[in-house]
Amino acid sequence: MPPLERHVFVCENNRDPNDPRGCCAAKGAADVRSRLRVLAKEAGLKGRVRINTAGCLDQCAHGVTVVVYPEAVWYGHVTVDDAEEIFRSHVLAGVPVERLRLAHMRPPD
Amino acid sequence: MPPLERHVFVCENNRDPNDPRGCCAAKGAADVRSRLRVLAKEAGLKGRVRINTAGCLDQCAHGVTVVVYPEAVWYGHVTVDDAEEIFRSHVLAGVPVERLRLAHMRPPD
Repeated sequence: MPPLERHVFVCENNRDPNDPRGCCAAKGAADVRSRLRVLAKEAGLKGRVRINTAGCLDQCAHGVTVVVYPEAVWYGHVTVDDAEEIFRSHVLAGVPVERLRLAHMRPPD
Repeated sequence: MPPLERHVFVCENNRDPNDPRGCCAAKGAADVRSRLRVLAKEAGLKGRVRINTAGCLDQCAHGVTVVVYPEAVWYGHVTVDDAEEIFRSHVLAGVPVERLRLAHMRPPD
């Protein structure tokens, strides 16, 4: 068992408003990160689960992007509601939320 | 094989200068992250290795803190020279640098 059971990184990169890719910050990343933190705190997971902000995860067109380790599961277009589902299913129960996964970031079967 | 072979997060959190724990930003985290990025670029690892900045990794007294996934290996007190060693040994060759690991963040044997 690693010291952290799950380590969640939320991209909060901020790009120029004219950048056609957009960026996670402009799509609500801070709200997603805040919700995940509240859920982790409410669940009493300090020291077992950590929710971190991250710099650009290079998925700008697919943001808000979240990656969960150690499973290396990447999620895209994450909303606050999605964050709740990711937390309950993946962070707590270990079951990735398939419908939110970034297909191009999946390992080959 | 996951889409990223290694994902490296460097804590760049910034605390009040009077905080007794100190912080990674004040200990040279940006230089460590920059060096890792240059090394990854020089090695032609775009898309295989990513070097990211991260928010507080909760190891303030042991900073500069770096965590490498998917192995979940935590390093503390990382200097620019250490970053070179972490890159050559762990990121490139898959061999963690034992002398730099944070003992309390190791999984039990």
